[in-house]
Amino acid sequence: MPVIEVHLLEGYQPDDRRRLSESLTDAVRLVVPAPPEAVTIMLHEMPSDNYYRGRTTRTPAAALPDPCELIEQFLAHLGARDLAKASEYLSDSVVMQFPSSEPMHTLEQLIEWSKPRYRSIAKQIEGSEAFQSAGDETIVFCRGTLSGEWPDGSTFKGVRFIDRFELVNAKITRQDVWNDLAEARVAL
Amino acid sequence: MPVIEVHLLEGYQPDDRRRLSESLTDAVRLVVPAPPEAVTIMLHEMPSDNYYRGRTTRTPAAALPDPCELIEQFLAHLGARDLAKASEYLSDSVVMQFPSSEPMHTLEQLIEWSKPRYRSIAKQIEGSEAFQSAGDETIVFCRGTLSGEWPDGSTFKGVRFIDRFELVNAKITRQDVWNDLAEARVAL
Amino acid sequence: MPVIEVHLLEGYQPDDRRRLSESLTDAVRLVVPAPPEAVTIMLHEMPSDNYYRGRTTRTPAAALPDPCELIEQFLAHLGARDLAKASEYLSDSVVMQFPSSEPMHTLEQLIEWSKPRYRSIAKQIEGSEAFQSAGDETIVFCRGTLSGEWPDGSTFKGVRFIDRFELVNAKITRQDVWNDLAEARVAL
Amino acid sequence: MPVIEVHLLEGYQPDDRRRLSESLTDAVRLVVPAPPEAVTIMLHEMPSDNYYRGRTTRTPAAALPDPCELIEQFLAHLGARDLAKASEYLSDSVVMQFPSSEPMHTLEQLIEWSKPRYRSIAKQIEGSEAFQSAGDETIVFCRGTLSGEWPDGSTFKGVRFIDRFELVNAKITRQDVWNDLAEARVAL
Amino acid sequence: MPVIEVHLLEGYQPDDRRRLSESLTDAVRLVVPAPPEAVTIMLHEMPSDNYYRGRTTRTPAAALPDPCELIEQFLAHLGARDLAKASEYLSDSVVMQFPSSEPMHTLEQLIEWSKPRYRSIAKQIEGSEAFQSAGDETIVFCRGTLSGEWPDGSTFKGVRFIDRFELVNAKITRQDVWNDLAEARVAL
Amino acid sequence: MPVIEVHLLEGYQPDDRRRLSESLTDAVRLVVPAPPEAVTIMLHEMPSDNYYRGRTTRTPAAALPDPCELIEQFLAHLGARDLAKASEYLSDSVVMQFPSSEPMHTLEQLIEWSKPRYRSIAKQIEGSEAFQSAGDETIVFCRGTLSGEWPDGSTFKGVRFIDRFELVNAKITRQDVWNDLAEARVAL
Repeated sequence: MPVIEVHLLEGYQPDDRRRLSESLTDAVRLVVPAPPEAVTIMLHEMPSDNYYRGRTTRTPAAALPDPCELIEQFLAHLGARDLAKASEYLSDSVVMQFPSSEPMHTLEQLIEWSKPRYRSIAKQIEGSEAFQSAGDETIVFCRGTLSGEWPDGSTFKGVRFIDRFELVNAKITRQDVWNDLAEARVAL
Repeated sequence: MPVIEVHLLEGYQPDDRRRLSESLTDAVRLVVPAPPEAVTIMLHEMPSDNYYRGRTTRTPAAALPDPCELIEQFLAHLGARDLAKASEYLSDSVVMQFPSSEPMHTLEQLIEWSKPRYRSIAKQIEGSEAFQSAGDETIVFCRGTLSGEWPDGSTFKGVRFIDRFELVNAKITRQDVWNDLAEARVAL
Repeated sequence: MPVIEVHLLEGYQPDDRRRLSESLTDAVRLVVPAPPEAVTIMLHEMPSDNYYRGRTTRTPAAALPDPCELIEQFLAHLGARDLAKASEYLSDSVVMQFPSSEPMHTLEQLIEWSKPRYRSIAKQIEGSEAFQSAGDETIVFCRGTLSGEWPDGSTFKGVRFIDRFELVNAKITRQDVWNDLAEARVAL
Repeated sequence: MPVIEVHLLEGYQPDDRRRLSESLTDAVRLVVPAPPEAVTIMLHEMPSDNYYRGRTTRTPAAALPDPCELIEQFLAHLGARDLAKASEYLSDSVVMQFPSSEPMHTLEQLIEWSKPRYRSIAKQIEGSEAFQSAGDETIVFCRGTLSGEWPDGSTFKGVRFIDRFELVNAKITRQDVWNDLAEARVAL
Repeated sequence: MPVIEVHLLEGYQPDDRRRLSESLTDAVRLVVPAPPEAVTIMLHEMPSDNYYRGRTTRTPAAALPDPCELIEQFLAHLGARDLAKASEYLSDSVVMQFPSSEPMHTLEQLIEWSKPRYRSIAKQIEGSEAFQSAGDETIVFCRGTLSGEWPDGSTFKGVRFIDRFELVNAKITRQDVWNDLAEARVAL
Repeated sequence: MPVIEVHLLEGYQPDDRRRLSESLTDAVRLVVPAPPEAVTIMLHEMPSDNYYRGRTTRTPAAALPDPCELIEQFLAHLGARDLAKASEYLSDSVVMQFPSSEPMHTLEQLIEWSKPRYRSIAKQIEGSEAFQSAGDETIVFCRGTLSGEWPDGSTFKGVRFIDRFELVNAKITRQDVWNDLAEARVAL
């Protein structure tokens, strides 16, 4: 049932407004057990000179990018071993935590760490899910299966993984990885 | 900046309305890069005889429970091996996917499966995160570390885990589990 | 699609608010080809000291009675020949126009006029329909069939009629009557 | 007093919005005894990508035509005996009920039925009134006087009539006619 | 024409809300040349647990007192030479500027300064006017005429005066006084 | 805290809307002790064919000019002794009340009255403040210091003054002046 009215400064693209409307619809349904069709969202856009707080107008900040798309781009660059491009998605203070790894801070460290573990690896993404925390971090979960070659050249596939990312201002500040690679190695 | 007005039927508890307001604030910030203080939520409650769709009034549905609290209760019952109580949180068609397990459908199956793997286990939860999917499922991620005893009586602790739950109508329909237990066993 | 918000002073009964919501739903659908379920009405009630025009508050006027019910009550009293009660529904300046009659101004005139036409008459109402004109008049249409006795004692039934009423301040100011009694007489 | 806010998708013409505003003003006054000047209507138009229900946008349906104008056009074509054009206003399942007629379904039937009754006929419309029923039907009442020639060539005029039309999707599905022609014939 | 909607936390008294509505009506008319009757104010009160900014609720602050009444009370106490009570209206850092005086900071200074100027004095207030500055200061203008006795015992009356007050948090921080006493002395 | 929504016909310039927003912010703070940053103003503009009262649209009236600017222009023309231009700011029925003067009605009268009092005079404006009364009058207070030459050619400066203006329809209908010139003369 809820009807949501959003008063928003002009300047957001149709796609931003669609994502905002979807995000709000889902947010309602986290608490109110309504089917999606029962949730109405109305966006009221205002030119910036029609909105005042403290007697002054505000300029709309550019929308954040779609965090799931951003993470999938990062993973694609990393998968293609384009470390330069992949690094652009990382915050300077990024922490990467892989199974049994020490916390790592650069992609070079990560590549080094992985060498004794597998010769190559690829991610088949089955689902990405994002939401905003109460703090500055946008959280993205990405899950699916891994395939690749062990150091001895034999192959694996269908190994489950899940990554949890924290993004601040559209930069990755943290990546936590869980997967079944050790289970798979044990099973060899 | 956004100002959100929510038109809601009367009947939701203060705690439900707080959760709704928090959820909407976060939803805005997934797209609009505003600090929390810049997001205003105003709830307008209506008695049910002041809301009409198709010339008829609506009765407010009871709020969904807090999904993070629900999952933590489930895990507490499971940890205490109170399978009867834990089972009440499961949908009839629940699927539980653990590392290297077949899909399991009952807690008894799960206990049986775990026996050769560890003698006892406990979860130290570090964080739970929930959001609503576009579909019927509420998603909860719960992560932290595991401690317990291996079958040989030696112990482990600080083993990372993450669980992903799907809830429909406040019942668990799916649980996916990832953890570093195999890494830990290998490291023995 | 339209979502209608009504800002209304407190003081209207649930039944008044239901009638208002229905009336507004229908009004939308006269122009917008939406099914009823697509029209949402939200009534926002305000205590009278929260509404100001020209720096002064307003007191809500009592709702008008349901005009269809009012007309059916009038017709019931008239059918029962309780002219005293029926007269209470008439404005002082009422005009009643029956087939081939002169304009009449009292129920006594009407009874007198009808005497040579039928010995008794009863209305079987099939439908009443009301709406507000742009002016002061509320319009009610009431239609169905007549049954009764001709002056010679023979009977008739199933004779179609329609009455059009104008109401101002819940008093009848005009009644126009059409029916097939002349057709029926001719057919004798 | 009531202040009405209408949230509407962009795409309705000024004339549609005027008719909607008038219709809503009248709808309020059917229940609240306010003079027209006390009823404020504010239309808020939204581009279709700012309105979401169930996470999807809606396209505005074309406004319905003015039902009084539509009926007056139909009657003009019928009066001019342009049966082809008049037929375009009729639903396939139209029912026409004239005084003492059987239910008729085509204009040809109607013309045939009328032949023994009058040689020619013309309508002087005094008023048309329309409103939306709770169902699919828009109701139009049209009233005034008839003039024409009897089969014997003598003339009549000032004979009262009223027509009640039902329209569904801007097509006439039913016409009920009452008039004083039998009274007039009797009076010859 | 403007219609003003105010979303306000519950807790303001009817008199506060009346003053707010009047103040807003006047504020509109400073820019829009509308008669008062054309300005509609609707106050929507919310319980504090229905308003969130930054995910937290707010408590309504107590309304400020009517500044004109406050100044008239201060002047009444001062006129009655009740310096203790009058002093309660003054900020610790008050500045009082009278014609040809140095800036004064206490009522005792003021009384001392006035002694050679008049033996007694009384204010006949003709009008008080208040408005809020863009800063912290509420401004009150109070004007009328003075009557009293000169040091030589002769009397004066009808001498024009105007006082300008600045209030911060309902305490007087500044008083500027202009009057025609010097004109009147010269005219002796 | 208050959030103010203003429904306004399209046609007001950005500067008019800024002045309106500032005026409303201040009006709120006259009663609610909120810092300016806590007051949100949202202007919703409507094309004139989306606003109806009494079934008819309204045309927006041109905004009133900034009253402080208007008064400063008037005083500048008067200071430059451009009586023709200054007179354009006066209503036909203007009343000007200076210290010890009779009520005056023309600038020529005023100039005549001032001749024995000073040979020349100039205003250094320190502040102008405007607000709308409950009636038709906009009130402007203008204060600062005077400098000039006495009739004997000696000079004065730093003499405090305050003017109170009433404006109706952007024409000055009343000017009341207070200053310390008599104090200054006495002090010679």
